[in-house]
Amino acid sequence: MEDRPPHWFRSRFAYGPHLKLFQVRFDWMVNPRNNHEEKMIVLEGGDSVQVVAETVEGEILLVRQYRFGVGALLEELPGGLVDPGEAPAVAAQRELREETGYVATEWQYLGKHAANPVFMNAYVHHFAARGISREGAPRLDKGEDVKLTTVSREALKARLLRSEFPHPHTVCALLAYLTSTGDLK
Amino acid sequence: MEDRPPHWFRSRFAYGPHLKLFQVRFDWMVNPRNNHEEKMIVLEGGDSVQVVAETVEGEILLVRQYRFGVGALLEELPGGLVDPGEAPAVAAQRELREETGYVATEWQYLGKHAANPVFMNAYVHHFAARGISREGAPRLDKGEDVKLTTVSREALKARLLRSEFPHPHTVCALLAYLTSTGDLK
Repeated sequence: MEDRPPHWFRSRFAYGPHLKLFQVRFDWMVNPRNNHEEKMIVLEGGDSVQVVAETVEGEILLVRQYRFGVGALLEELPGGLVDPGEAPAVAAQRELREETGYVATEWQYLGKHAANPVFMNAYVHHFAARGISREGAPRLDKGEDVKLTTVSREALKARLLRSEFPHPHTVCALLAYLTSTGDLK
Repeated sequence: MEDRPPHWFRSRFAYGPHLKLFQVRFDWMVNPRNNHEEKMIVLEGGDSVQVVAETVEGEILLVRQYRFGVGALLEELPGGLVDPGEAPAVAAQRELREETGYVATEWQYLGKHAANPVFMNAYVHHFAARGISREGAPRLDKGEDVKLTTVSREALKARLLRSEFPHPHTVCALLAYLTSTGDLK
């Protein structure tokens, strides 16, 4: 591996359509290997957050919702998009409250992964929430329908290792969480 | 949780622009909770594959390439898109050969995750490749520039648990692989 690889060069870019979740951008990139120029696509969008919220009994909150991409009901961690100008830590608190009705007294940042580094510029930030209590009913968007469930940490780990969580962002957050607790080592 | 939740209903759909990697589709979905209709976006695209290839010395092949979404050089597993009509297992062999120059005598399917179930219909399939040997030079697309490196299984696991692989699909494949080998349990 070279210490200082030659860099890709962006010769120009242009914005494409806005697609609800994304602003499409086209980058014309020059390959340092062969000087070939190719039009690449980048979906500009906001970062998102995933929250691993522990109940006082040591169970973890999961949300069950219909995912339009795959057309199926999936169990995942609570979370969602960071609003423009919002700090990820604030978004994590807001999303936990909105999706589940719960608030937490203790928050821990667990790191981040790229949303999809191939064609997205966004990152996913992971948080643990402890000392949680139910403050009230969830406040769902009109386009959401979310059911709440809980799972023990042992079952959570077993399901993660069996690849039973289809959403890669839930997988990344659970990996960071279960490593931080010492359950994975 | 209800055993038979009321289902989301698609009242109509329309195709949007084709964006190099994706065919955009808009689905108008009716929320069973409140009958609210909302326009959702689905990016139709092909499945992809990730390959965990073990050298005879027990090291794992990684590829280092520039990722246009985040604008950075990343280390990831070899892999890529399944061609139309191609079986994922065939795509895994093809991508390993093209990106790294290696072929393998033994292949194991490690399962799949959704690419991003929120707005993509595609899945990512994970494979382990053993008994590998270098058949020749990589055959890269004109728009690719890939450097090959190797890492021990111990270092691979340590880096995974430290969230040092930014690509969620690499994370999912490594989790499946290290579980299958008994390194994660």
